[in-house]
Parts: sequence; structure tokens; C-alpha cells
Amino acid sequence: MRVGVVARSDIDEAVELSSEIVDFLMENDVETFIDSPLVDELKKYNAQYTELSCELGDMDVDMVIAVGGDGTILRTQSFVNKKKIPIFGINMGTVGFLTEIDPENALTAIGEVLKGNYFVEERTQLQVCHNNKLHSALNEVVLMTRKPAKMLHIEIKVDDEVMEELRADGLIVATPSGSTAYSMSAGGPIVDPKVGAFIIVPICPFKLGARPTVVSNDSVIKVKLLRKGKKAIAVIDGQFEEEINYMDEIIFKKSANNAYFVRLTTDFYRKVREKLTEGGVSS
Amino acid sequence: MRVGVVARSDIDEAVELSSEIVDFLMENDVETFIDSPLVDELKKYNAQYTELSCELGDMDVDMVIAVGGDGTILRTQSFVNKKKIPIFGINMGTVGFLTEIDPENALTAIGEVLKGNYFVEERTQLQVCHNNKLHSALNEVVLMTRKPAKMLHIEIKVDDEVMEELRADGLIVATPSGSTAYSMSAGGPIVDPKVGAFIIVPICPFKLGARPTVVSNDSVIKVKLLRKGKKAIAVIDGQFEEEINYMDEIIFKKSANNAYFVRLTTDFYRKVREKLTEGGVSS
Amino acid sequence: MRVGVVARSDIDEAVELSSEIVDFLMENDVETFIDSPLVDELKKYNAQYTELSCELGDMDVDMVIAVGGDGTILRTQSFVNKKKIPIFGINMGTVGFLTEIDPENALTAIGEVLKGNYFVEERTQLQVCHNNKLHSALNEVVLMTRKPAKMLHIEIKVDDEVMEELRADGLIVATPSGSTAYSMSAGGPIVDPKVGAFIIVPICPFKLGARPTVVSNDSVIKVKLLRKGKKAIAVIDGQFEEEINYMDEIIFKKSANNAYFVRLTTDFYRKVREKLTEGGVSS
Amino acid sequence: MRVGVVARSDIDEAVELSSEIVDFLMENDVETFIDSPLVDELKKYNAQYTELSCELGDMDVDMVIAVGGDGTILRTQSFVNKKKIPIFGINMGTVGFLTEIDPENALTAIGEVLKGNYFVEERTQLQVCHNNKLHSALNEVVLMTRKPAKMLHIEIKVDDEVMEELRADGLIVATPSGSTAYSMSAGGPIVDPKVGAFIIVPICPFKLGARPTVVSNDSVIKVKLLRKGKKAIAVIDGQFEEEINYMDEIIFKKSANNAYFVRLTTDFYRKVREKLTEGGVSS
Repeated sequence: MRVGVVARSDIDEAVELSSEIVDFLMENDVETFIDSPLVDELKKYNAQYTELSCELGDMDVDMVIAVGGDGTILRTQSFVNKKKIPIFGINMGTVGFLTEIDPENALTAIGEVLKGNYFVEERTQLQVCHNNKLHSALNEVVLMTRKPAKMLHIEIKVDDEVMEELRADGLIVATPSGSTAYSMSAGGPIVDPKVGAFIIVPICPFKLGARPTVVSNDSVIKVKLLRKGKKAIAVIDGQFEEEINYMDEIIFKKSANNAYFVRLTTDFYRKVREKLTEGGVSS
Repeated sequence: MRVGVVARSDIDEAVELSSEIVDFLMENDVETFIDSPLVDELKKYNAQYTELSCELGDMDVDMVIAVGGDGTILRTQSFVNKKKIPIFGINMGTVGFLTEIDPENALTAIGEVLKGNYFVEERTQLQVCHNNKLHSALNEVVLMTRKPAKMLHIEIKVDDEVMEELRADGLIVATPSGSTAYSMSAGGPIVDPKVGAFIIVPICPFKLGARPTVVSNDSVIKVKLLRKGKKAIAVIDGQFEEEINYMDEIIFKKSANNAYFVRLTTDFYRKVREKLTEGGVSS
Repeated sequence: MRVGVVARSDIDEAVELSSEIVDFLMENDVETFIDSPLVDELKKYNAQYTELSCELGDMDVDMVIAVGGDGTILRTQSFVNKKKIPIFGINMGTVGFLTEIDPENALTAIGEVLKGNYFVEERTQLQVCHNNKLHSALNEVVLMTRKPAKMLHIEIKVDDEVMEELRADGLIVATPSGSTAYSMSAGGPIVDPKVGAFIIVPICPFKLGARPTVVSNDSVIKVKLLRKGKKAIAVIDGQFEEEINYMDEIIFKKSANNAYFVRLTTDFYRKVREKLTEGGVSS
Repeated sequence: MRVGVVARSDIDEAVELSSEIVDFLMENDVETFIDSPLVDELKKYNAQYTELSCELGDMDVDMVIAVGGDGTILRTQSFVNKKKIPIFGINMGTVGFLTEIDPENALTAIGEVLKGNYFVEERTQLQVCHNNKLHSALNEVVLMTRKPAKMLHIEIKVDDEVMEELRADGLIVATPSGSTAYSMSAGGPIVDPKVGAFIIVPICPFKLGARPTVVSNDSVIKVKLLRKGKKAIAVIDGQFEEEINYMDEIIFKKSANNAYFVRLTTDFYRKVREKLTEGGVSS
């Protein structure tokens, strides 16, 4: 087995745990690769780590272990997107919806995975096309103004039928994976990852009757900015930004590439109750 | 072509329009059958109608024309459920989400249908199983207390994982077709009929964090009443009631039978905007 | 000091605790009165209790100790309504928003109260007038259909201006005290008891844009049922029911009588977080 | 009578109508003052306008006529704040909740006002104190991050009791006047201007159970940013911005200064229905 390791390198605990994980993998004769920025932090623990350094985007591995929060997972996914490499997330963040295991159980869990006691869950992604550039989003794409507290005037089409036209602070198009993230904050429903759907949720719509809408992920969603002179940005999985201009059309459809996660148990609804009811504020 | 006609016989306009429709069908040499209770009302227009009388459940036709509101359509569907007979709805109700055409355009539209200028839309239905009895619902099944303003204590499982346990006035399990009906009133999202999903919406949950949940229609939903001594009822499409007891399990899954509608245009989102924003209060 | 004791007599723990409370009061030379139905249960502990029996409505006391849940408090309040007798609630229910202390701390807390270490909090009540009959509600008045899952057609006026006309399962008019009860379940905001306001919340409105409305408690709210032939009921604090007919007018305004509660601490928002986020399901 | 005139000078129709209004006022022997930036636009109609030029903040008048949308009214109010000068708003915007009359009826309405056929409505304002600087807000104060789609970690106290601690995109503290503006978009209730209250609404809270809260306007609300290193801004009535730092405390209470509006009719709820249900998108 060939395994990559990536971590949030600005959190000491994450770096330290990564060091333990790398040692554990090597003791178990696993061929290990470490994300270059993480190597820079790990060198103080052991100079030998330098030899394992590899760019995340270049890793040719069977699994990537990602130590961090949902942001770390989303960033990792963006690098391994087309390679079908499953990610095993160790939660070092405040929520960790996309992670699978807590730090204290990390080594035991990795041991189980090395023995083959796991399954791989596929999650559909959203493909965004704007100005002929394509991006994949695992959670969501958010359209917002650059200026806080200013509204966008948006037209939304589903399979070329006008779904709605509204003024709002922004618009979220989310996958079921994203239904427990930003889409939930904006009032969207919880959507089971098994549902073949996207969720369209306006952010602070200036209208009494706006409501979240769930559309098939076989549908094509087209969004246009109707108000001249107002610039917007598209934020993809909270990681990347892209500028949107007046009358630009942004086209959403199902991505050809799924995301893959190493899982030990099935527990979507337990996570919803535990991580979201308490507000996810653990630190 | 063989066509059945059914109508809300307590509304004069609906009966009168039915009479015009039957005449129109017969002028066009369509073999016509009239729902027995409607015949009783129609006889005053023309005694010959009596010969066309047929029980709705016994009709062996290519299409049923239903004149009334959504209640009429839901009732008609319950009679033709397993026969794959498409329904063509003429709106005589306050909302008419499931109907296709307004009364003033009824004859023209029927003319188009006779010429073959239409398509048939399939809608998935929900199957409810309780005490080994099976029912089909096109819109939704509602669990409620018999006593107004009293709460049920409910446990909901999705594919045998506990999704939620809550106290609420009731619970709605709805199809996408039902997402614009009672489920919407209780705060559920709009769900495009193309989505293969059911919507689970608590009615007045006594909990700050309850949220509508969208689950796959390949999933099995099991609901149990946890509070001893409280009786509940299941209301199926607003048409039928069934009593539920303490610790009874109600099992929801996709029905083997779809519903079929004669359609002239695709306009789901236009209907959402026009019929729901204004409150559907037209009379 | 003269103290009355009332309890939910169908719960053994509540009856038992009442017995301890009565003993504690008598040891402290407090003149004690026991609600007659509770005496019937208490006799098995001590036959002497019979002498302390008194109808709740006839009690002429300085304070009533109520052992039970919010229903017990609401019922007690309805009996002492015009007498300005403060209620001290011991929580034996699932939520106990109106109660002040948990059972395990009951005797200590009563000791503090006897020493004078408490304050009395006033809460405004809602007065409902229907067919020239007046009722007071501490939490809310709910208008609903007798038949589950059927809608009312309602017109609401505030100070003689039409506020809204809508179709819904029902309508709640609540006080700030009631903002954490049924009104919250139906989607209403949390309203601090210091706010001089009433909350109007439709239950399952069949309209995308309906929203809770907060009006001054100096305003007069008038509600009318517009749909002929549909009967409704008004449920007052979940305790009493009154039948409403077509075109009846129900008039809401601030009650001349406040409710009074014995309080040891100020903790409205702690209660909101603890009792409502977890769903109030503790038993 | 002495009257000031101000208008949104970037909209031709508003400038043109201002010119007609000034002419109408002068024909009626009203002493008229024109906001300086508007004079620059009006000069092309009539050079004499130059003599009437006056800074809005320096106007010593009985009434200001403001031609524009809600932004124009909010900006005008910020200039006349302490002077108790009533504003008469002519709607040239998309919503115009704070305006009184449509452009086509402007001159007739001004004629009525000159005859004394009007009343003045007082609206309470919110006072914000941050770093010893005071601001007044007629609608709301919004706390947000400078970076779109990033969260703030906020602690809210009401009268020194912790109300809530949450992570959210932002927080709105609004007056009843503001309840139909941004607060409504973020999910807040409609609050009648007669209610002595403020509304606290989180923007996209990352928590399932967050709910709008209505507190007395006699209360003191204190908000603190808990997350180090994250900067925020306070946006006051959508007009002014102020930077907020980690652990800064922002204190909200009722302003000593009310806002005053010239009104011809009482129609709060009609405006709610007409301007908000349709989304206020009129252009």
C-alpha cells in the first residue's frame, strides 16, 4: 500500500500527530509520501522525513491521510480530484464533518484500515463552468458580492426554465455533502448523501417567500447576475475565488469526478446531531 | 381513445364544465365513461349521460379527465393507482398544483390532447406499510395526534440508522410532488419532481434545531411512536385516515406504482411562483 | 406566611415530593393548604394531610408551590389568576420552562424563599374575548381546526388595519412567556419577557411568504374565520378549549391581570439554551 | 413653513422630480432650501436654484422632502438626526419602505402636507457605541467579516446575561423599522414599529438551533468578537462602516434621538404585503 500524508501545518497538534502517523506507517512497512509544506514542519522531529517529500498534486498513492478540519479535506480533495484517491480524514478542526476519526483514535483506526477493515464512500461533486473554466466543488459554490451587506440581483434557471429571480446577499449551490455546511447556515435542508441532488439556497434573500430548492443532479443550473456594475465572486469550497461580471453565466452540473472517502462506519445522522446541534463550537 | 370523466360534484361550475366536456368528447367520437356520483348530478343536463355511468375504480380507459382541485386529483389517483392511467386535471380549486389547465381553456386543451399533442409525466409515489396494510400516497403521509395541540414523541430511522428522535405536533413524509403542498407549509424545501427523494418534515417540532431532511427514495424510512397511551392517525394524501398505536412501526418506501399525468407544458417553477407566493388564495 | 401546595397527582414522584414539601413547610411553622385532588393522593403518606385540604381556587395564600411541568403551572395560574398570588414551580416535567427549581434542590430553595431570599417576577398575560366571554392566557391561545390536517382561512387585524389574510392549519397568538413554548415550535422568535409585545404565528401557513409578526401589547388583535362551514377551536394555554364558528370574531388584548412567579435568579437565556436546544426531551 | 429638498442625484428621474417639487414649493411661497449636491444637478433646469443651496447638515427647516429610495432616507436621517426634523420620502427606489408616496402623487401629497393634512410618526433609533464613538441607526447595525464567506465567533449579552455564543457570517441588531429590511432577509420576524424592542438576528449561523431574538429596547446589548486575528466591520444603516477588532465590545441601546416621518396614512402591514411579498423587485 502507498499512502500520502497531509496536515494543517499551522496547528502544532496536527503536525505532531502527522509525525506519529508517518512513524506508524513506516513501522508497518507502508510506502509513505509527505506533502511538501508539511515536511518543512516535520523536519524538526526527524530529518529523514525530507526524503518522503512529495507535492500533494503529484502523489500516486492508494490513500491520503489528511489531518485537519473540513478545510483541509476540501483543499486535499481539490488536489487529488481526478485521481479517485480516497481520503482518510483525522479531525483536528472545530467541526470535521468530512473527517472520519478523532485524533485520539487515529493510529488504531489507521491500523484497521491497513488490515483492510474499511469501505470507500463515493460522494458526487458539483462542476462549475464560468468563462470556459471548469472547477469541481465537493461542498458548494457560493456567489457573493465583494462588498459586505450589498445585494446581488440573480436569475436562476433549471434545465432552461426560469426557477427564480431574486435579490439577495448571495446564492449557494451545494451538493448533499455541502448540505451540512454553509447551505445549512443559510437555511437549507439536510440532504442525505445518497440523494442525487443539488441544493439551491439564497443567502439573505430580500423577499418574504424565498425557499431552498432541491433539484436533480442530472439537471443543469444556470445563474446570471442581472444588475449592471456590480461585481461578484464565486467561492469554491471556501478555498478558491473567481471573479464574476455582469451578465456572466455560471453553469452548474454534476462533475464527472466523484470524491472518495475511507470510512469505518455509516453514521451520517449521528454526525448531524452531534456536530450541528451544538453549533460545532468546540474550541 | 377511451376517456373517463370525474369531477367534484359539490361545485356547480365543476359539474357544468363536466357536462360540456362530455359533450365535446362525444362530438369527437371518443368513447366516454362518467364517474357514477357525477352522473347523478349530470342527469339534469341530459338523461342520456346515465348510459355512460361507470365506477371510477372500474374504468378501463386511456385517460381520466378530473375536474376539481388537488383533492379531486389525489382522490382520483387513489382509484386508478395500479392501472397506469394518466390523469388530465382541470383546475376548479383554490390551488390546483396537480392540475394542468384552467377551466376557460379546458376544451381547447382536451382538443389538443385528442390530437396527440401532449406528453405523460410520471411521478413517484410513497408506499406506507402499517400493520401489514399497504397504501400509496402521491403527495404525503401525515402523522398527527387526534387531539389538537398535543405532541407526539417520534423516532425516525433511515435505513435502520436513527435519524432523529423528537417531540412534535406531527410528522410529514412527502414526495417531491408533495413538496409544494403540506410539506411546504411545515417549512420543507421545494423539491423538483425529477429528484429521487422523500422529504421528512416535523410539524411544529418542540426543539430549536429541527430541520427538514431530504432522503433518497431508495431508502426505507421507519417511524415509531415512543409515548405510551397516545394515539395518532396517519392521513394519506388528505384523503384517508388510519389509526396508529403506541410502538406501532410505520414503514415508508418508494411505491412500485407511479402516478401518471397528461401534460401540455413543462412549468414546475412557474407554478411554484404563481400558486404559492400569493398563497393560493384565489377564492 | 401562608402557602398553598399543588402537584401533578398522576406522577408518583411529584406526589412524593409534595409530601416532603408539606412536611418541610409545617416543620417551619408555615400555614399550609393542599389542593384537594392532591390530598387524595397524599392521604396514604399521612392521614393528617386531610385537614389541610382546600380547593385551589379558594386558596387565600401568599404563595403557591406547584410541583409538575409547565402544564401544571399554567393550570395553577388559571385558578389564581385575579389574586396576584405568586407561583413557585418545582420542575417535574419534561421541559419546565415556567418552573424555577429542580426537584433535588426543592427543599433548600423553599428554605431560601421562607427567609425572604427571592423576588417576584411579573409576566403579562393575554386576554381573549369571544362571544362576550373573557379568558386569560399566560402562554398562548391557539386557533385550530377540529379535524387534523385541514386548513382554516383566517383574517387578522391589528388596531383595525388588516395585517394578513391566510390559509393555515391554525394561528397562535402568544405572550413573550409563550415565545419559548408552542410559538417557538411553529417558527416564532424568542421574545424576552421584558418586551411589551404579542407574537402572531401562523401554524403551517399555505403560503411561501408568511412570517411571524411581533405586535405591541397595547394593540388590539382581531381574528376572524372566513371559510363558511368550518369549525375551529381556541385552545387556551393548552388547558381549555372553546368552540369558534364561521365569522366569529376573537379579540386579543393585554389582560388586566399579570401572572406572578417566585424567582431566585435571572436566567431567561440560559433556560432557552438548555431547555430548547436539546429538545426538552429529558424523559 | 421652511422646507429642505434632497434627492438621489445619480437618477435623472429623481433630479427632474426634485426640480418640479422646488418649483411647486416656491409657487406656494414656501421658503425652500436645496441640498448642495442636488443643486449641481438642478442648475441645468434653472440657474436660480443656486441661491437656494444649503448643506443638508446645516438646514434649519420644518421638514425635509427626500426623493429616492430607502438609502436616501437613511442617509438624510443621519444628517438631521439630532434636530427632530421630519422627513417626507418620495419613492424613487426599488422598495421604498421608509418613503411615504409614489412619484406620480408627489405634488398632490406635498400640497396636502402644506395644508396641514398630515401627522408625524416617531421611530426609535438604535445607538451603537464602539471605542467611545457613538452612532445612531434607524434600521440596523450589521457586524460582518471583511472577507466574504468567513465566519465570526460572537458572544452576545443582554443586560449582562450571556444570551448566546455562536459562529456566523455576521450579526444584525435591528430596530422595528429595520425589521422589514436586512433583518427580514436574514430570517427575522416582522416587528410593528409600536413595539419597544430590538431584534437580534444572526446571519447564516453555523448551528441548527439559532433563532431570532426580540429584546426590550430598554435593555443593553453587548457584542464581543471572540476569535483572535479576525477583523470585522460594523455597517450602520448600510451607509457607514467602522472597523471592529478582536475582543472589542460593541454596545447597543436605545438612542436618545428618535427619527420623525411625515405621514399621510397608517399602512404598515399593507406595505409589508405589497413591498416584501413580491420581493421588492420593481426595476
